[in-house]
Parts: sequence; structure tokens; C-alpha cells
Amino acid sequence: MAITPEQSALLDRVNEPSDLRRVPEGELQNVADAVRAEMIDAVSVTGGHLGSGLGVVELTVALHHVFDTPDDRIVWDVGHQCYPHKILTGRRDRIRTLRQGGGLSGFTKRSESVYDPFGAAHSSTSISAALGMAVGRDLDVAAAKAKGQSAKRRNMIAVIGDGSMSAGMAYEAMNNAGALHSRLIVILNDNDMSIAPPVGAMSAYLARLASGDTYRTLRDAAKQLGKLLPKAIYQRAAAAEEYARSLVVGGGTMFEEMGFHYVGPVDGHNLDHLLPVLKNVRDAEHGPILLHVVTRKGKGYAPAEASADRYHGVVKFDVVSGVQAKAKPNAPAYTRVFGESLIKAADADPKVVAITAAMPGGTGIDLFGKAHPDKTFDVGIAEQHAVTFAGGLATEGYKPFVAIYSTFLQRAYDQVVHDVALQNLPVRFCMDRAGLVGADGATHAGAFDLAYLCCLPNMTVMAAADEAELVHMVATCHAHDSGPIALRYPRGEGVGVELPEKGVALPIGKGRMVREDANARVAILSLGTRLAEALKAADLLADQGVAVTVADARFAKPLDEALILDLASRHEVLVTVEEGSRGGFGAMVLHLLAERGALDAGRVRVRTMTLPDLYQDHDSPEKMYAEAGLDANSIAKVVNETLPSDKAGKGDIADNVVSVRRRPR
Amino acid sequence: MAITPEQSALLDRVNEPSDLRRVPEGELQNVADAVRAEMIDAVSVTGGHLGSGLGVVELTVALHHVFDTPDDRIVWDVGHQCYPHKILTGRRDRIRTLRQGGGLSGFTKRSESVYDPFGAAHSSTSISAALGMAVGRDLDVAAAKAKGQSAKRRNMIAVIGDGSMSAGMAYEAMNNAGALHSRLIVILNDNDMSIAPPVGAMSAYLARLASGDTYRTLRDAAKQLGKLLPKAIYQRAAAAEEYARSLVVGGGTMFEEMGFHYVGPVDGHNLDHLLPVLKNVRDAEHGPILLHVVTRKGKGYAPAEASADRYHGVVKFDVVSGVQAKAKPNAPAYTRVFGESLIKAADADPKVVAITAAMPGGTGIDLFGKAHPDKTFDVGIAEQHAVTFAGGLATEGYKPFVAIYSTFLQRAYDQVVHDVALQNLPVRFCMDRAGLVGADGATHAGAFDLAYLCCLPNMTVMAAADEAELVHMVATCHAHDSGPIALRYPRGEGVGVELPEKGVALPIGKGRMVREDANARVAILSLGTRLAEALKAADLLADQGVAVTVADARFAKPLDEALILDLASRHEVLVTVEEGSRGGFGAMVLHLLAERGALDAGRVRVRTMTLPDLYQDHDSPEKMYAEAGLDANSIAKVVNETLPSDKAGKGDIADNVVSVRRRPR
Repeated sequence: MAITPEQSALLDRVNEPSDLRRVPEGELQNVADAVRAEMIDAVSVTGGHLGSGLGVVELTVALHHVFDTPDDRIVWDVGHQCYPHKILTGRRDRIRTLRQGGGLSGFTKRSESVYDPFGAAHSSTSISAALGMAVGRDLDVAAAKAKGQSAKRRNMIAVIGDGSMSAGMAYEAMNNAGALHSRLIVILNDNDMSIAPPVGAMSAYLARLASGDTYRTLRDAAKQLGKLLPKAIYQRAAAAEEYARSLVVGGGTMFEEMGFHYVGPVDGHNLDHLLPVLKNVRDAEHGPILLHVVTRKGKGYAPAEASADRYHGVVKFDVVSGVQAKAKPNAPAYTRVFGESLIKAADADPKVVAITAAMPGGTGIDLFGKAHPDKTFDVGIAEQHAVTFAGGLATEGYKPFVAIYSTFLQRAYDQVVHDVALQNLPVRFCMDRAGLVGADGATHAGAFDLAYLCCLPNMTVMAAADEAELVHMVATCHAHDSGPIALRYPRGEGVGVELPEKGVALPIGKGRMVREDANARVAILSLGTRLAEALKAADLLADQGVAVTVADARFAKPLDEALILDLASRHEVLVTVEEGSRGGFGAMVLHLLAERGALDAGRVRVRTMTLPDLYQDHDSPEKMYAEAGLDANSIAKVVNETLPSDKAGKGDIADNVVSVRRRPR
Repeated sequence: MAITPEQSALLDRVNEPSDLRRVPEGELQNVADAVRAEMIDAVSVTGGHLGSGLGVVELTVALHHVFDTPDDRIVWDVGHQCYPHKILTGRRDRIRTLRQGGGLSGFTKRSESVYDPFGAAHSSTSISAALGMAVGRDLDVAAAKAKGQSAKRRNMIAVIGDGSMSAGMAYEAMNNAGALHSRLIVILNDNDMSIAPPVGAMSAYLARLASGDTYRTLRDAAKQLGKLLPKAIYQRAAAAEEYARSLVVGGGTMFEEMGFHYVGPVDGHNLDHLLPVLKNVRDAEHGPILLHVVTRKGKGYAPAEASADRYHGVVKFDVVSGVQAKAKPNAPAYTRVFGESLIKAADADPKVVAITAAMPGGTGIDLFGKAHPDKTFDVGIAEQHAVTFAGGLATEGYKPFVAIYSTFLQRAYDQVVHDVALQNLPVRFCMDRAGLVGADGATHAGAFDLAYLCCLPNMTVMAAADEAELVHMVATCHAHDSGPIALRYPRGEGVGVELPEKGVALPIGKGRMVREDANARVAILSLGTRLAEALKAADLLADQGVAVTVADARFAKPLDEALILDLASRHEVLVTVEEGSRGGFGAMVLHLLAERGALDAGRVRVRTMTLPDLYQDHDSPEKMYAEAGLDANSIAKVVNETLPSDKAGKGDIADNVVSVRRRPR
């Protein structure tokens, strides 16, 4: 299974797609095999997304062989299937840096390569982006024509998985594309999977389509192909002729009703089928075209084929056995603590229901679903619907928990505002992966939820400082039935504190003192997971003779006004710390202090420590926190710099902290 | 056309749906006629949404007659078609307070009536909400059954227009509903209109469906009805039997592929057709059902029928002639100034393109479209797609302007973050209706854009203080090609300043001094349209002997740091003023001042004036601004309260300002 010297030598010769286009068709499968071996070998070292990439090896080879990339644009939806694409587009030499600090991104990224015309990581954006590109090309062509010149008729190709088709955004793009008649190629990569098995009516429809059961108007396919394609397959490739007869072209599918030409289904692992079809699609004058390609997630690597969801994203693994090298965790993951806490809430209260948008594993809803299957709703990649669906349940007296990544709640912002908060409906938003997320990088960071939620009237916003706090905050969400409430917690393992047997609802809008010192000149007010670093910073400062009070705000909204005003009145320096952007917790504290005149006398110096105003690239969490200036050293440094000069702590800690807090312009 | 005494007397007898259910079927058209007359009469006085409501008069009467409201739930999508519903659900006595301060909302609103189970105003939410309700009912029924009890099998009904079907959210909900098999009734109100004529492939498909051209599998409809419905129409109503044969039930439509039973099309103005079909749909054991009802926007009022878009939303009008009483404006509307400025930009630069999500008239893109039709893209109600489509155009070197209401950009927040800002693509967001919007109320207020955009790295954010500023800021958007830029401006007329012949790009991140006074102890730093009130406040304060500097920040991001730090260093009081929530401009100013230590010495007292932390009900703009504390009196009052007591201005202005700035809990 490891890459052979021959395969490596072959890949040495196909460094760029232009090289690949010189490879005879008969040898392309060898290239595909080599790419597959290289990819398995690389991911076994780096970890990352495995199954999706393995499923599109042949498709990737065929696309770069048939199309004139990068002049033709391939937009990979989500982007986690792009490792073969990266290997074939001049990035093979860095493929073992995938998801490592300073290395290749695990997704497509414009700044990384001209072969990545559009970055992705959230799903279902590819058709919109490719349609924008297609319209741009049409305008270029029209402008050139008006001047009596000609412009290249580039091909714009979106490759989108069947799971991504459940998102409304993909439908909006199809609806627009079907009306615009622009030449656009949408390749539906149908592996009957997103991350978890897909749900929803569209998924069932695609399965029927792939199985051939539902063709209502199965005309003479070869004839239809001839009509659609100026140079029909049977004129070009005798080998493909017979195959062409099994294709459906034209009438009878939903896609046709939406204004697309439907071609498929095609076996996505058979280059003899893929190549002639892609060539004909490329040369067709019609647009838009939907090409339905059927693939298998994890193809060619037995462990991944056998368990597509477990091999969607992997840590380092042994290539031969497929065994993933899971380090024994020091503490349970927040996700697991959340899932188990929610199970307990539902055990006690039949009104508790849980909603996930196609992320049961990532959110702990898989655990919940085993315990309470009838109270579990996976709505597909459909965050907008998830939130308003929860709103509907709330109006009927249910207690819906929407378990969602912070970054994906952005997809449902208007629904949070207009359908939930404005109506003051008691929907619980449990935001996993809030803050920095390490190897997944900027696209998955949950940086903005504090800013975009704290501004909303009626909203209550909490952040858990550790996994025990998370247990209590799930109980708080459960108890809070008078309006919407949001709870954020980070990716990864907890800090190792003892878990309470049972969560106890916290008083709304009350923080807690964590470390008090009667002589403290400095107060650190932490929200969420930076509390441990705040305490470490307090230790560092104490070593230097600076006594520090540390409080955990628990709530970003409503603020614990009494606590904050008290801290401000009794200390020379007040520093807020949060794992979120500006405009969130620190901003709310500043608004409060300003409004109450607490800053007027100049008795307290306030600093707000937030994530920097830039998109941080993927790296190890520790390095990212240091870069962000949110580790203990950075906190201590800010305190020292803020204390009136005659009172600052002695010592030279943290001089190596890189300052990235200001936006470069 | 005016309501007759007989009609008024009839409506006196049907105050609630329970009354309506006692009216014999043969008299229901009289009720409908009376409701229509009452509605026209009321809207001629109040202004408001006219055409949509007129189109659903018969449907509203039929629904409340057939269904057991409010136990059965009717969720009106968008809600602007709900005036007949309000008349028939106990609110007729207040129907002439529509959209007036303290009066009925122009949309459905949970706090207003038990007959409004879900509030709306943004489109395409109804299927999600009703599906949530349906699932709640299913859980209720299952729980009761487990206890050996029975629970009412309520009907959950979403009424959604064809225009709203272009939004991805509606598709997400259909996709989920088609898989859940819950009993849900979706009534597709097909009037071939949203506000403007609808666009997109789905719209074309519905038109084909309504015309009967596309039924691929037109089976024996009566037989199919019999199969679907336990008590088929022909067993119940001989009059309907023949009609039933023209219905399509079951196979052959896209909706069927999505897991719905499709029934229709039905003439939505013919009660003899509507009533039996609704009864059968009510009694069907199957779910979900899509009932396709064809109506005419503006039905029964000739001026509105003839010009559906002009009568979508109206001001007061003369009932007989239909002439709308447009007051001569004092200044051009911001929307018009925007549209004309964008035309000039496109006249000079072929790379300028404009995108609207189904709001060409509301955004000024109708004007632009006349001048540059090939550069104009109306993508339908599809904000998510609109933004990423613009991102795709930007990658190809085009300069896309997304013209959108501030409140609707919330629908595309993730696309702004993930597809545009993160990739630093030069997409221009031109946000009309930023701030308070008067009669449209809380659902349409553009309160949060400053908070949700200023937190984003790479983003530039501007606000126009007047219509001349808007001209320059459109030019600034055009010139700024290195990253995303957002521009906000308010609803309504400009302030009457002279318009520049040509916009000149402003320096990014630079504000301007508007009123300088060497003796000023107070600085007011305004962002956007409250500048005129800030200047009035300065006049009021000057009259009291308090000299005031007034500056216009122009940019919320990046901040004019030099200007702000200078203002803070030279004044005793610095007040920021913005027509947006907390977490926006004022918060960014506070972050800056704190970071730079500008507050440490206590030499300047800072206050941030923002919109209050509550959803303000609709009212006249003046009253809303006074309630928000953002008029001149309120600004002067804050200054006076903040000035050190020995220096405060004399006088008793603004004692009548209601303080609503604190969130009630």
C-alpha cells in the first residue's frame, strides 16, 4: 500500500497539470494509483481528511487531463477532497506539511496556488462561486467581441458532493444558474456521504437516480448525447459508445427541471468512462450541465472504504493496518461532555430535543441520538433551516438545543436574529469549536460569535471555562426557558477538572471570583477557556510581586455589572481576556464601564485582550494562542505594560511574544 | 369600492375564525368581498402592503373556515399578506392602526395574537417553522400515546409565495420535510410575483406547472385523489368532482421527488375549488403535502391588479382612482442617489457589475439595470448565493456591488465572512435601510451590521452622513479594489445637501472635522446619519455655553486613529454617536482608546451612544429616534450629564427623553 519507487518516479514526471496532459490516456490509471498511494502515505503522517480525497483520485486526474487548468477553473466544494488535486498541481513536495504550521492548508486556498481559484472549507459554495466566474467570462467574451477581438472561453467547473446539495445555498445557485444559461459545469460527486451519511429528500432522490429506478423519460441516450454534444461520444471513442447508451441525458430529472442538462450517472473510478464524458461536456455548447459522477468514499484503501465516516478525518495512522494512533486523552473532549450532559437533561425532561446540521459526530449529537433517537433531528447541511425549525419547536413548548460549530452558526445568522431572538424564543445554541481550532485553520475558527450574538437584544451568551463549567452551563441552557441562550466552548479536550455528577443551573448574568487577593492591584476578567492561562499569568505576576485577582465572567451577556464595576473600582488595572474578536465580550465591558462613568476618574486602566484582527493560519493550538497573544505570557506582558511604570512587575518574561494584534494594512 | 354598510355589518358578525366557521359555505364569498373592501379602505388610510393581501383574501377565508385556528397553526411566509388574516382574527377594530406607532404590525407577530403562531417579515422561513411545529405535535402525540392518552392532531400549515421559493432556506426545509414524513401542509401561493417579478429556474418551473404543460405523468387525477385522500372529493362534493379531474396528484413533479404529495394547481380565488381541496388536504393521513394555489396579486382592485409591483407596498391612496398620495420629497432618496452614482461608476468602468437579491426597486438596482442591463444580476431571494456569486465575479477581475438591505445581509453572513472577507476579495456591500426603518419595524431594522462587520479582518466599513457623502462613498467603493468594503446608508430621503457632480474616492480610514471650536470642551464623533442631530446638539449646547467639536468618522473600520486620539486628548468629553447596536463603531473606538491608554489618565470622559438593546416597535422615524436616544436632545443630554458637574451646560432641555437604553430583564 506504501508508494512504490516506480510510482514516486511517475509522480516526479507529473508535477503540474500540463505534464499530466501529456500522459497518454492509457497510463492515467497508473498516475491515479500513484496519487492514491502518495496520498495515503502522506495522510498517515500528517492526519487530515482521507476518505473524501481517495474518492476523487480518478476524477481529479481526469479533470486536470481534460481541462486546461488553471485557465479553466476547478472549484472544489468544501475543499477537503483536494489532496490529490494538491499533489497534481505542484504541491507534492509539500504534501507532508498538510495542516502543519507553515505547511499546506487542508483545504483549497487562493493564496496557496493559482490552481485554487476559490478557497473553501464550509460546504456548498462552489456553484455560486463558479457561476460568478462563468458570468465574468461571459462578460469578458462579450466585451472582446464588441471590440472585434476574441477572449478565451474558459471552462468553469464546480465539483460538489451529494451531502453539500442539502444546503440551500447550492439550490439558490442552481436556481440562478438554470435561469442564466451561462456555460457552467457542475460535477455532482455522489458518494452517498457528506461526513455522516446524508439525510433529506434530495439524498434519497439522488440514490434513486444513481440506481436507475426513477428515470421517467429514458429516451435513446446515445441519440440524446448526440443532440447535446456537438462531437458525440460515439463519434470519438468506440470504447465509450456502449457505455454512452447507459447515460441519461436531458429530460426527466429534477436538474433538468431546474434548467440544467443532466448527464449521468458515470462511474467516477473508471477513466474509460470519465474521460470521454468529460471531453464531451467540455466541448458542449450548452450550459449549464450537471454531470452526475458516482464514487466511493475512501476508494482504494480498504480500512477507509469499510468505515467511511471514521476515515473522513483521521489522525496519524498505520498504513498497513489502518489503525489510527489516537493518543490517550488526558481529559474528555468538550464535545463528549456536552453530549453526555444533554443526554442527562433529556433523561429528566421529555421536552428536550437536539438538532444538528449534518454534524452528529462533531457535536456529540451522535451520543445523544443513541440515547434519545426520537428526540434527535439531523436536518442535513442546512443551518438556516436548523435554527428556524428549532424556533418552531420552541413555540410548541419544546426545548430545542441546536448543537453547531461556532463558525457554522454564521450560516444561520439571520435566523438567529429574526426568527429566534426577535421573537424571544427559548432556543439553545450550543457552539462547539468556539475560538481557535488548530489544524483546521482560519475557515473553521469560531472567532466572531461573541460579536455577532452579544449585539442581539434578548440574547444570553455564556462561555465555559472548563468541562465542569460546560456541564453546569448545559443545565443553565436547559433551565433558561424565557428566551434564547447561547453557549460557547472550545475544540478538543477539557482541562482535566473533575466533572460534577449533575449540572446545576447557574444564575443568569453572574460571574465568579476564581482567585482573590486583598492586595491585588490587577484584575484579570476572563471569559471562557483562557481562564487557565489567566491563572498562569497571575502566578507569573505573583512571582514578580504583582498581586492579581482573577474572575470568570461566565456571561458575555448579560454582564455581571456588579462584579465588573467592583473589579474596576478596586484595581489599578483591569484586563479582559476572551478567545474571540473585537466587538464581543471586551467591547461589552467597555461599553458598560464608559456608560457608568467607571473610567472617568482614571483610577483603573482597562485593556481588552481578544483574538487579533486577522485570519490566523492553521498551526498547533499553542502556537496559535501565542501568536494571538492569548497565552499566559502575553497576558502577563500586557499587565506589566499597563501597570503604572513605578509599579510594574520586574523580570523579562514574554519578551519573545510576537505582537500581531494590530491589523496590517 | 368602499366598504358598504352591509359588508361592515357582515364583518361585525365574524370577529373571530370561530364565527367564520359558522358561516355557510355559500356566503363565504360575501365575507371575502367584505374583507377585501375593508382592507382596501384601511390601507388607503394607513399605507402598507396592498397587493399581497388582496391576492389571498379567498384563501384566508377558506383556511380559517376549514381549519381549527388557532389550534391549527397557519404560518404566513413573509407576513405582508396577513391583513385579511388580521381582519378575520379579532383585529379588525385596529386595522386602521396598521404600521402606525402603537398600532398593529404590518407583519405577523406572536405578541399580537394567538392566531400568529410565528412572526415573519423576512421571507422563506415558514416551512421550517411549521415543520418544527409539526414535529412538536408528533412528539406530543407519541408522548400521549405512550401514556395511553390522546393528543390533538393539529394541522400545521405554511403559506409561502412562489417568490419565496427561490431562497435556499425554503429548499432546506422541503428537503428535511420530505425525509421526515411528518404531516405538514405547505400551500404554495403562486402569483408569479414576489415584490418584483420573480427570477430563477424554480419560478419558470412553477409557471410551466401552473400552465399544465409539464405534467409528465398525468394519471387519472380523480383516482389518485381517491388514493391519497381517505374521503375523496368526489364522495363529498359533487360540484367539485369535475374539477378534481383537472388536478394533478402524485408523481411527476419536482415536489414529489422531494417527498411531498403535490396537489394542484387550484384557483385561489374560487371558493368552490378551494374549500373541498382544503378539507381533503386537512383530512389526509399522508404528509407532507404541497398544495399549489394560483392567485393574482392585487386581485379585486383594478389599479393593483394592473400594476402589481407598484401596489406591493403603497402610501395612502385614493380608493376610487388608486392614485397614491406621494408627498413631494424635499431631497432625493438615498436609494436613488446610490443607483445614479453606481450608473456613473459603470459608465466609466466596464468592470462594474451590480447584484440584487430580488429587490431591484428597493435598492436602486432597477435604475442601474435600465442603464446597464448586461451588468445587472437579480439572483432572486437568495442572499447567500448573491454574495458568493459576487465573490466569484471578483476573482475574475470584476467589481461587484451587492446592493442589499442591511437586515437582509444577515442572511449571507457566513458568505461575507468565509467566501469574501477571509479571501480578501473586493466585493462591495452597499447596505440600504441601515439603522431604524420606521413603519416596517423591528424585523427590517438594520441595527447589527456595524457589529457583525467591524469584527471581520480585512473588512472596510463606511457610513454615509448625507446623500453627498453617499456619492463619494460609492466612488470610494469603486476605487477600493484591494479587499471587501461595506457602505451603509439609511432608508428615506436625504437631508437636502447639494449633490456633487462626480463622486471622489475618500482616503480609506480618514474622518473629517465638521465643526471645530478652539474652546471646545466636548467632542461629538458621529458615524453616519446622526451627524445632523449631532450638529443640532452642538447648537443646543453652544446656546448653553458649552462649546462643541463635531467630527464625522466616515469609517467604522479602519478607524481614523489619529483623529480619534486627537479628539480624546483635546476634550473633556468624547461622545460617539451611531445608528447601530452596541459592539459596532463605539465599541471599536473604546477598544482603540483602551489599547492606546488614552483613557488611563482620566482626562477624557467617553460615552458611546448606540441603538438601545431592544427591538424597537414600528413608529414614525422621529419617535423612534427619540425613543432610541439618538436625537439632538438626547445627545445634548448625555453631554450635559457627562460634563464634570461644575462645567455642565445650563438649561433643562431633553428632560422628556424616555430612557430605554438599558435592557429590561
